Amino acid sequence: MFFLVCFDIVDNRVRYRVVKILKGYGTRVQKSVFECANMTEYKFMKMQSDLEEIIDHGEDTIRYYPLCKHCVGQVEFSGTGNPPNTRAYSVS
Amino acid sequence: MFFLVCFDIVDNRVRYRVVKILKGYGTRVQKSVFECANMTEYKFMKMQSDLEEIIDHGEDTIRYYPLCKHCVGQVEFSGTGNPPNTRAYSVS
Repeated sequence: MFFLVCFDIVDNRVRYRVVKILKGYGTRVQKSVFECANMTEYKFMKMQSDLEEIIDHGEDTIRYYPLCKHCVGQVEFSGTGNPPNTRAYSVS
Repeated sequence: MFFLVCFDIVDNRVRYRVVKILKGYGTRVQKSVFECANMTEYKFMKMQSDLEEIIDHGEDTIRYYPLCKHCVGQVEFSGTGNPPNTRAYSVS
């Protein structure tokens, strides 16, 4: 599965830890956006629970957007950046 | 169509104008993330061209992620925020 993970984290130390966790699962494509390919159900649940342990549920927000193979293939961008590396994705 | 639009804009004035344009197409769910539902092909191309006219293509980045009905229905979040308003979506 491919997940797009977007976050708004208030505290700098918490944000640093969120980024550190997400780097273990995907590629940072914008300051607060990661593309996480090749995610199994287990990997997603582990990532989500690790993140939920450290964020402040009253002021921080993380959104997880699953993209199927078709959706991933339609991603566009303006300005700098690269398209998602769909070759690396085993997207179900 | 449903589009997730994520942006990293360097200049504050340009970012303000990007947000203003995107408010005409969708809901701001995080500082640099908009959910744009009920997008026709024409609306998407108009939005994209309006944005591309004002950003600095050398340092700014905007990413457009289409989500089909199935993907939109699987969106999850941690912390604050609301699920996407799938009722309002005519998602093809």
